Amino acid sequence: MVDVIEKKRNGEKLTNEEITFFVNGYTDGSIPDYQASAFLMAIYFQGMDAEEQASLTMAMVETGDQIDLSSIKGIKVDKHSTGGVGDTTTLILAPLVAACGVPVAKMSGRGLGHTGGTLDKLEAIDGFHIELSEAQFVKQVNDLKLAVIGQSGNLTPADKNLYALRDVTATVDSIPLIASSIMSKKIAAGADAIVLDVKTGDGAFMKTVEEARALAESMVAIGKQVGRNTMAIISDMSQPLGYTIGNALEVKEAIETLKGQGPSDLTELCLVLGSKMIVAGGKANSLEEARTMLESVIADGSALELFGKLIEAQGGNGKIIQDTSLLPTATYQIEVPAPTSGYIAKMEADDIGVAAMLLGAGRATKDDEIDLAVGIVLTKKIGDTIQQGEPLAIIHSNTQDVERSISLIQKHITISNDPVSSPQLIGEMITG
Amino acid sequence: MVDVIEKKRNGEKLTNEEITFFVNGYTDGSIPDYQASAFLMAIYFQGMDAEEQASLTMAMVETGDQIDLSSIKGIKVDKHSTGGVGDTTTLILAPLVAACGVPVAKMSGRGLGHTGGTLDKLEAIDGFHIELSEAQFVKQVNDLKLAVIGQSGNLTPADKNLYALRDVTATVDSIPLIASSIMSKKIAAGADAIVLDVKTGDGAFMKTVEEARALAESMVAIGKQVGRNTMAIISDMSQPLGYTIGNALEVKEAIETLKGQGPSDLTELCLVLGSKMIVAGGKANSLEEARTMLESVIADGSALELFGKLIEAQGGNGKIIQDTSLLPTATYQIEVPAPTSGYIAKMEADDIGVAAMLLGAGRATKDDEIDLAVGIVLTKKIGDTIQQGEPLAIIHSNTQDVERSISLIQKHITISNDPVSSPQLIGEMITG
Repeated sequence: MVDVIEKKRNGEKLTNEEITFFVNGYTDGSIPDYQASAFLMAIYFQGMDAEEQASLTMAMVETGDQIDLSSIKGIKVDKHSTGGVGDTTTLILAPLVAACGVPVAKMSGRGLGHTGGTLDKLEAIDGFHIELSEAQFVKQVNDLKLAVIGQSGNLTPADKNLYALRDVTATVDSIPLIASSIMSKKIAAGADAIVLDVKTGDGAFMKTVEEARALAESMVAIGKQVGRNTMAIISDMSQPLGYTIGNALEVKEAIETLKGQGPSDLTELCLVLGSKMIVAGGKANSLEEARTMLESVIADGSALELFGKLIEAQGGNGKIIQDTSLLPTATYQIEVPAPTSGYIAKMEADDIGVAAMLLGAGRATKDDEIDLAVGIVLTKKIGDTIQQGEPLAIIHSNTQDVERSISLIQKHITISNDPVSSPQLIGEMITG
Repeated sequence: MVDVIEKKRNGEKLTNEEITFFVNGYTDGSIPDYQASAFLMAIYFQGMDAEEQASLTMAMVETGDQIDLSSIKGIKVDKHSTGGVGDTTTLILAPLVAACGVPVAKMSGRGLGHTGGTLDKLEAIDGFHIELSEAQFVKQVNDLKLAVIGQSGNLTPADKNLYALRDVTATVDSIPLIASSIMSKKIAAGADAIVLDVKTGDGAFMKTVEEARALAESMVAIGKQVGRNTMAIISDMSQPLGYTIGNALEVKEAIETLKGQGPSDLTELCLVLGSKMIVAGGKANSLEEARTMLESVIADGSALELFGKLIEAQGGNGKIIQDTSLLPTATYQIEVPAPTSGYIAKMEADDIGVAAMLLGAGRATKDDEIDLAVGIVLTKKIGDTIQQGEPLAIIHSNTQDVERSISLIQKHITISNDPVSSPQLIGEMITG
């Protein structure tokens, strides 16, 4: 192993055998943590090319179970977002794309952060359960074209172990390591094609467009190397996506979007990502054609109807698609007034997300309980005008002690005297 | 600790507190190996400035015992060589400098390599023992100006632990880490002033003059930061120093050098280093004056006589200074013939050292036994002429099975048709 570390340290390219030796040795315990962490730091500095990243990805995939989706008819397309504030796209995209005929066999997570993950959001729907056996999962996708479950089995244990080590050795923010980690999970989960939404800006892990582009290019190159059709878009996360941050609140926003009444940014992002997924799934020949299909399944109500069927199939109360008041609601709704009049110049997504987490919408640590009802509903987007005293946001809370969240929101929404243009939501598209 | 790793990883300068926190935490086990190795790899890439290196050095010194030489009168000057093939300078310099009045309280090591260390060489002298109590050590230096013992006490445990970790994580060849390691050991051993001989070339750890200069500058800068007068020379190790490689053989060569009959390169290096030591020890005002003193203690026999007294004081047979046939001798002396005639163009010190180690002159692993009698006596230096069949070297061995050593010597001494100039022995001098 010391020779492998030294080779990477010296900037040389590692072979597939060397990378697999590392991943297997670390997984079976024959390579100790201290060699792994030195190796990860060498990768941090020297990087890895697409072939090396593909080797790392596949070696990690092979340390664990792989979901076999071959009995699901059609091209299975998965979507991954690198995470942001108020990102409800999965809840919208899954029924939208499935309604157009692309099978969606989705494994989602809970995760730490400003709100829960997709699973937590779905659990805001009374009765919804996220455990299905692999056979039930496959059957539901074949029947409905759609299932969303929690990760089952022992997927990519090497990635879990390496991530835990990276977290305590300052080797998290390495693009080859991030890219391999994400791609290994998607590949182990059985995707034939992968559409990536790489967020950039204040509320995203990748703060700059350059970093986001590098990550997107890395993941697309890995996909190409391992024969999974992979494409990426870069999207803006300088302000929260949509207007809501919170679990039940985001379900409600997702339903509105499926009805064609959602926020324009969230709707647009879903149409762009959905179009890619439909083309990748072989159901349309062009993005324009795909977009028309998506617009029609919104307009005719079939996407929303399918979301209702998904809920019912997984034990939930499907009536919520007609009556969102059936979702959990918070006791208090507290207005956050604008301190001055002007144009919304900045809405720092990260800090507004923290305000939501403080209300109980997200987990700071793995064992925290989430309050599914609470969160923040923003009233504006960057570029909008506001009058002093008009609400910037409405806090949904089960306590009246929300001073810290109010001050975070007021501090991190900047109001300017001069007009401000709205940031561009969709940036580059990266294809292999 | 993860913040300290990240700070160094990002190329920022660490404070004394941060470095001390790391060294103490690693020593007491509260910082795990895997964080230490990631940190060392970050240092490998980002380096450390002189202040950081001084902090690391002193933090390592303070984890263990420090030898108190304050009851020895005068300025205690230590010498350190970064190691090479056939380097017998300590055996010569110690009596030479002591004979000029500079107290030499020398702690030496055994070490791995082509031959044993200074302690092994001294043990080739019948009866010589290298254990003295600290009180006996101090008394002997006050009486004789000279004692050479093995390391006692628990000096720089942090350095030992970190070195062991570096060895298995490809973080050995980092100049700040090498410099801090060497300086911590010298400072813990009680030196007031330190003269460094940084070797460069094929037989040295630092293969290029640039690396050797960087290491020398680092160590001199650390010395300056911590208030120990430190200076360095860069000397050539592209060919072995002197003619002999082997323990008893090098003692014999040291005695010849103390008589004024040694190899010119070894003699010159001892005069240069010795002059520095005498000036650092305050016994001469200029290098020229110091050199004259050294030449006179060779010429009048007082340096050799003092070497005899050292041997007697530490239980050895002092008669060997007059009769080197009392040293252990090998059963066989086997000539290695020159395959062609011409000029000696290269003598690859490293490989010739391996030939000596194969005979039993050095240890490949810590537990190997050394054969003190065996080794290699070269007959030529680079630039000399040789006739086909004339010996390139004489192997001193206790077995006739020396084919591998013969072929190594023949392969790694290159003979050219064209005249070759001899490499410059003494390079730059680096002072603070």
